[in-house]
Amino acid sequence: MERLLSVSNSLGKLFIITSFGESHGQCVGVIVDGCPAGLSLKAADIQKDLDRRRANVGVASTSRREKDRVKILSGVAGGFTTGAPLCLLIMNEDVDSSAYEAMKSQFRPGQADFTARVKYGGFNDWRGGGRFSGRITATFVMAGAVARKLLDTIGIEVFAHTVEIGGIKAATLPYEEIRRKALKDPFSCADARASAKMAALMETIKRKGDSLGGIIEGIALNIPVGLGEPVFDALDAELAKAIIAIPAVKGVEFGAGFAATRMKGSENNDPFTVKGCKIITTTNNAGGILGGISSGMPVVVRVAIKPTASIALEQSTVDIEKMKKATLKVGGRHDVCIVPRAVPVVEAMMSVMLCDFAMRAGLIPRVLK
Amino acid sequence: MERLLSVSNSLGKLFIITSFGESHGQCVGVIVDGCPAGLSLKAADIQKDLDRRRANVGVASTSRREKDRVKILSGVAGGFTTGAPLCLLIMNEDVDSSAYEAMKSQFRPGQADFTARVKYGGFNDWRGGGRFSGRITATFVMAGAVARKLLDTIGIEVFAHTVEIGGIKAATLPYEEIRRKALKDPFSCADARASAKMAALMETIKRKGDSLGGIIEGIALNIPVGLGEPVFDALDAELAKAIIAIPAVKGVEFGAGFAATRMKGSENNDPFTVKGCKIITTTNNAGGILGGISSGMPVVVRVAIKPTASIALEQSTVDIEKMKKATLKVGGRHDVCIVPRAVPVVEAMMSVMLCDFAMRAGLIPRVLK
Amino acid sequence: MERLLSVSNSLGKLFIITSFGESHGQCVGVIVDGCPAGLSLKAADIQKDLDRRRANVGVASTSRREKDRVKILSGVAGGFTTGAPLCLLIMNEDVDSSAYEAMKSQFRPGQADFTARVKYGGFNDWRGGGRFSGRITATFVMAGAVARKLLDTIGIEVFAHTVEIGGIKAATLPYEEIRRKALKDPFSCADARASAKMAALMETIKRKGDSLGGIIEGIALNIPVGLGEPVFDALDAELAKAIIAIPAVKGVEFGAGFAATRMKGSENNDPFTVKGCKIITTTNNAGGILGGISSGMPVVVRVAIKPTASIALEQSTVDIEKMKKATLKVGGRHDVCIVPRAVPVVEAMMSVMLCDFAMRAGLIPRVLK
Amino acid sequence: MERLLSVSNSLGKLFIITSFGESHGQCVGVIVDGCPAGLSLKAADIQKDLDRRRANVGVASTSRREKDRVKILSGVAGGFTTGAPLCLLIMNEDVDSSAYEAMKSQFRPGQADFTARVKYGGFNDWRGGGRFSGRITATFVMAGAVARKLLDTIGIEVFAHTVEIGGIKAATLPYEEIRRKALKDPFSCADARASAKMAALMETIKRKGDSLGGIIEGIALNIPVGLGEPVFDALDAELAKAIIAIPAVKGVEFGAGFAATRMKGSENNDPFTVKGCKIITTTNNAGGILGGISSGMPVVVRVAIKPTASIALEQSTVDIEKMKKATLKVGGRHDVCIVPRAVPVVEAMMSVMLCDFAMRAGLIPRVLK
Repeated sequence: MERLLSVSNSLGKLFIITSFGESHGQCVGVIVDGCPAGLSLKAADIQKDLDRRRANVGVASTSRREKDRVKILSGVAGGFTTGAPLCLLIMNEDVDSSAYEAMKSQFRPGQADFTARVKYGGFNDWRGGGRFSGRITATFVMAGAVARKLLDTIGIEVFAHTVEIGGIKAATLPYEEIRRKALKDPFSCADARASAKMAALMETIKRKGDSLGGIIEGIALNIPVGLGEPVFDALDAELAKAIIAIPAVKGVEFGAGFAATRMKGSENNDPFTVKGCKIITTTNNAGGILGGISSGMPVVVRVAIKPTASIALEQSTVDIEKMKKATLKVGGRHDVCIVPRAVPVVEAMMSVMLCDFAMRAGLIPRVLK
Repeated sequence: MERLLSVSNSLGKLFIITSFGESHGQCVGVIVDGCPAGLSLKAADIQKDLDRRRANVGVASTSRREKDRVKILSGVAGGFTTGAPLCLLIMNEDVDSSAYEAMKSQFRPGQADFTARVKYGGFNDWRGGGRFSGRITATFVMAGAVARKLLDTIGIEVFAHTVEIGGIKAATLPYEEIRRKALKDPFSCADARASAKMAALMETIKRKGDSLGGIIEGIALNIPVGLGEPVFDALDAELAKAIIAIPAVKGVEFGAGFAATRMKGSENNDPFTVKGCKIITTTNNAGGILGGISSGMPVVVRVAIKPTASIALEQSTVDIEKMKKATLKVGGRHDVCIVPRAVPVVEAMMSVMLCDFAMRAGLIPRVLK
Repeated sequence: MERLLSVSNSLGKLFIITSFGESHGQCVGVIVDGCPAGLSLKAADIQKDLDRRRANVGVASTSRREKDRVKILSGVAGGFTTGAPLCLLIMNEDVDSSAYEAMKSQFRPGQADFTARVKYGGFNDWRGGGRFSGRITATFVMAGAVARKLLDTIGIEVFAHTVEIGGIKAATLPYEEIRRKALKDPFSCADARASAKMAALMETIKRKGDSLGGIIEGIALNIPVGLGEPVFDALDAELAKAIIAIPAVKGVEFGAGFAATRMKGSENNDPFTVKGCKIITTTNNAGGILGGISSGMPVVVRVAIKPTASIALEQSTVDIEKMKKATLKVGGRHDVCIVPRAVPVVEAMMSVMLCDFAMRAGLIPRVLK
Repeated sequence: MERLLSVSNSLGKLFIITSFGESHGQCVGVIVDGCPAGLSLKAADIQKDLDRRRANVGVASTSRREKDRVKILSGVAGGFTTGAPLCLLIMNEDVDSSAYEAMKSQFRPGQADFTARVKYGGFNDWRGGGRFSGRITATFVMAGAVARKLLDTIGIEVFAHTVEIGGIKAATLPYEEIRRKALKDPFSCADARASAKMAALMETIKRKGDSLGGIIEGIALNIPVGLGEPVFDALDAELAKAIIAIPAVKGVEFGAGFAATRMKGSENNDPFTVKGCKIITTTNNAGGILGGISSGMPVVVRVAIKPTASIALEQSTVDIEKMKKATLKVGGRHDVCIVPRAVPVVEAMMSVMLCDFAMRAGLIPRVLK
C-alpha cells in the first residue's frame, strides 16, 4: 500500500501557485509563477489578508499566536513585480508539537492522520497535521492576495461571507450590504442578528468540547462574459476544484445549486433581458455561469464546511501500533468552528482561479503600466 | 469581448481523454491517451455503456433516434490495446438542424447560447447546441467505458443511481440492492416506489411543457487507501471538477456533504475501528475521503442536476440582432428530465478520474497480461 | 520490464495537438485544441502541405502510393473554425503488411522495433512500424498547416530547406533566394548545383541498397521580440523538444550552434545596432534567441537527420523468439533518404511551437475577424 | 510589445522542479514536488554538487565568493523526505550590483538584457542578469542532487565531462576512466593532456579579455529499456529541452549526432546482439535511444556551450535611453569559460529528467524503505 504516494502542489495554467511547508516545520510558503511584471507589490498587501485569516477572535479561534509575517523573497524589485516567480514565505514561530506526540499512533477521527500515514508510508510530517493542517491555507491566502491585486486592475471584485453556522442561517441581503457588514463582523456574517446567535451557539458548543460547521458564500462581481474553458476547464469545474482543495470543504454548489433540482425548468431558467447596452438575466439561478462560461452576472458559489474534526470530547479510534481499538482525547489548540477563518481562504481560491482564467483570456496584460 | 476564447478539451494526467465533435456536426469522438497496452477491447465493450446513455425510454427521453455506433479507429490491434492513443468515434446520423435555425439570434434561457456566442465571437457551431449539447457526454461515456475496464482489473467498481427527481426522494438502500435494482429501473432509481412516482410526475410535467431536475449519487467500491494527490489534486477536488464538466450539473457534495454543516463534530467524525486486518470507519460521513485521500471506505458523491433548460413553454429572452426583448418557444427534441440519462455519464467521469489516480499511484500496470 | 509503458501524444500549452493512428492501422489523425475561432479553414489548406510531405519524387522516395486525403471531422462550421477542437483525419488506404510479417521477431537495426516491443510488452502494432513509422509525421504536418495559417495572420513566416545530404553541402544563400528556390527543388535544396550532386549520390547509394542522412535548416522570419518563457519553456528548449520528436532527428543547433563552441566571445557575440526604429544585431550567431527569448532576428535551427534505418543490405540482429543472433534483410518500401520529405515536417513542428508561443504571448487574438 | 510576458519556471510531470530567485536578489531556490517519501536527505547531499558547480578554480572561474549554503526549508522530517514538497534555498550573500549600474541602459551583446527588457517591459531585475544569470543554475543543481539520490536507488548513474574547449578536443576514453579522471580534473576533462592545453589557452584568452566555449558530454549508465514517452515526450526530446534551458547552450546531439548525417545507414545502424540474457547493440551511434525510448545502452548527449558572453573587450551595442549606438565594456566578475562549471549542471538536468521518466515508468516506488 505504500506505493500510493504521489503529490501535486501546484494549481493554475498561466497564473500558477505552488504551495509548500508544514504546520510544525520551519515555514509555510508559496511560489507564484506567471504574475505579470509591473504590479506594485509590498508585504503589507499580502499581510492584510493573512491577518484576516489569523485574526478571528473570541470563541471561534485557536489560541496559536503567531505573527505570520510574510516575506517576499523573490520576484519583486524596486517595489514592482519583475515577471519572475514570487516566493512568499512565513517562518513558523510558535510551534509546540508535544500535544501531538501522544497521538502519533492513534488516528484522529475526521483528520487525514490515517490516510496520510498509509499514503506516505509513515514518513509524513504528522506534527500538527503537517501538510494537512489548516495552516497550509495561509499559503493559499498569500497567493490569493496577489491574484486579488491583479483582478483589481480589471475591476473584478471577490468577497465571501458566512451564510450559515451550526444550522443558523443569515438573512439574504444585497451584495452591497454584505460586502460592507461582513468585513466588520467577527464571524464574517453580514446579518448581525444571526451573528449574535452564532456567537451564543459557539460558546455553548465550546463548553461541551464539541465543534460546528457551516456554509460560506463566495461572490465575484464585474466578471466579463466569456471566462471558462469548456468542456473540461469549465469555470465552475475549476472553481470547484480549487475550493474543494481547502481542508474541511465537503461540497460546493453554484447559483441555486441543490435547490435547483427541485425547481421546474420554467422556474430555474434565468430569462434574458437588455439593460443599457448589456444583455443580462433578470434572475441568477445559474450563479453567473452558463455552459461552463461566465455570463456576466455575479458568480455565486456556496461552500459546505464540515464541523472541526479536532474536538475535546473522547472519541473511538484505532491504535495502529497495537492494531486495536482505542479511545482518544485530542489535545492541542483548535477552533470550535473554522468557518469564519475559512472566509478569506475561499476568497483566495476564487481569486487565484479567476485570475488564471482572466490571464488565459488575455484580459490581464503581461506587463502592467 | 471576442478575445476571450480559449479552450481545454483534455482531462487527466496519465490517463488522458480529449473530447471533440459537435451535436450536429459530422461526429463526436474522444482520444484516450495513456491506456495501458494489453487490455482486451472491443467496440461492444464501449457500446454497452453508450446504449445505457441513449436507451432511456418513456417520457424522460428525447426522440432523437441514432444508433450511436462506436468505431475504434486506432490504438487496438488484434483485439488488444497497443499502448498507442485510442480514437473512439461516432458518426452523427440523425441530424436535423431546422428547429434551431429560428433560434439563431435568440438565446435559449438556461443554455450556453449567449455565453458561447460572446466567447467564440459568433463562430461557434450553434446547431443543436454544438459543443454544449448533452450529446457531447457520449464522448465521456466512451472514455469512461475504457476506464471502467481498467478499474475492473484492480477490482474497483463504480456505479451511480437516481436518488431524487423533482423533489421525489428514493429510499436509502444497501449498495448491493442499489446496484442490482437501479440497472433495471427506467430512471436508474433503485427504489421502485419512488420510481413510479417519478414516472407519474414526469408525465404531468411533460404535458405542461415544463421540465424537472434531480440528484444522482455516484458510488465507488473497493477503493484502496491512498488515492488522491493533495493539496491541489485532492481526490474530491478532481472528482468534483470532472463531474461538474457534465452539462447541467450545479453542485456536488461528498459523504454527508451540506448536511454535515449542521452536524456537530462529535456526530460527523467517523470513528475508526479494526475489521479483520483492515482499519475502517464505522460510519462514512466523509464519503470515503479524508484530507483529499481515499480512506478505503466507499467513495460517495451526490450530484445536483438542474431541470432541463429546453422547455416547450414560452420564455422571455433577447434577440441579439435587434438587441431587444423577445419571446421564444424552443423547438427541437428534448428530455423532460435528463437525470436518468446522466447516470452513466456520472459513472463515466468518476471512472475516468479514478483510473487516472490509480495510474498515478502505480496501481494499474502499464502493460496488462 | 513490461511495466515501463506510458505515453504522451500531446504537445503545446494553449495551441495543443494530439496525434493518433498507426502506419498500417485504419487511419492517422490529429486533434488540434485551442485553435482560435474565425479562421478560414478548408481541407485544401492542409492538403497542400501534406502533398509536399508525400510528393517527393525520384530516388529519394518510397513507392507507397496513397492520396492521403485529409478530412476535417470537427471544429469547422461554414468554412470557419468554431473554437472547438479540430479533428483532422486521413484514412489509410495502401496498406500491405506482408513484408513486415517476417520481421516480427527480428528487430530492424536503427528502428524502434526492439524498444517498442519491450516497452509495450509486445502489444504494440508493429506492422509498418506502427506509431514509430515516419507516416505519423503526416499528423504533425496537418497540425502544422493550421498553425501556419494562424502565424500568417501576424506575419510570421516559417520555411525549411535541405542544407546537406550525405556530406554534400548546399551553398549559403540569402533567405529570399532559399525560400523561392527550395520550394521548387526535388530535394528542397536551394542550391541547384548541390541538389544535382545529391541526386547523383542518392542514385548510387540506392543501387547499393544503402541509405543517406543530412541536415535541414529551419528559418522563421518576422518573429516579434519576446517569444519564449524562461527558464524552462525557453523558445529554443521547446523548439528543440518539438523537432526532436520527429523520427530520425539526432541533433539540433541554434544559430552558430556547435561551431560557436570554437569561436571566441568577441567573435560569437552579436553586436547590437539601431535600424530605423528597431534594435537589431549585425550578425545572428544567436539564431534569433537570447536567454531563451526571441530577439526579433530570424530564428534559425539546424536539424541532424540520420540515414534511413531501413536498408536493403543484410544486417546483423537478434531473433527474440529464439533469443539468438540472426541476419535480416528488410523488405517493404523505404526512402533512400528521408531528408527532403522531412523538410515540411520540420516546418510543421516549428510552426506548431511558434503558434503556441504566440498564443501564450497574447499575439493571436482568440477570435479572428 | 509589453504584452509578451509569460513565464514558466517548472519542469517535469511527476518529479516537478520549480526554480525561483535572482542573481542579486535575496535568494535563489527550488521547490521539488513529487519526491517520494522515505529518502534520506541532508543538506550535505545537496551541498556536494553545489560545491562542484561553484568550486572551479583557476583562470576559468569568476571571483564571486559565496559559500552557497543550501537550507532545506520543507519536505524533510527526521532526516527523511516526507512526500511533501521540498523547498531548497540559498540566501545570496556577496552581492555587488554596482558594476551593472552603468549597463542598465546598454545591452550586453550575447546576453538576455535586450530580450528581457522588452519582454518584461523594463521591470525585470537586471542586476547581475537577474533570472538570466548563470547563478540560476544553482537551483538546477540542488534539484538534480535530489534526483540523483533517487536514481541511485535504482542503479542509474549520471555523469558529464568536458570533451572540448576552444577547439581543443579530449581523447576518447572508456566510461570507467572518464568517470574517475574527470572528477579530479579542474576542467572536468578526463584527458589530462588536453586539460593542460585548455588551461594554457584559457590563460592566454583571459589576458586578451576574451572568452571561450566548448562541448560537454553527458552520459547515463544502467538505464533500463523503455524510458521515454513517444511521440512527443520522447526521451531525447525531453532531455534536449531540459538541457537547452541551461544558459549558453546552443545545441545538443545524441549518439553520433551531426556526424551521423554523413554516415550511410549501413554504418550508422547499431547491430543487435545477445550478451548473456540481454539484447544489446554492438555499437551505440543511437546514443542509447531508439524511437524516443531508451534501449538499455548508455544514453549519450553532447552539449554545445557558447563562449561566455561577458568579455572585458569593448563591444558595440545600443543605448536604449538614447536609442543610438554605443560602445560598452562589461565590468563585473565573469568566467573566461563556463564549460567546467556547466558540467554538474548538465548532470543535474539529465538527472532531473531521467528521474521524472523513471517515476512515470513506475520504476521508483512512491515510498522508499
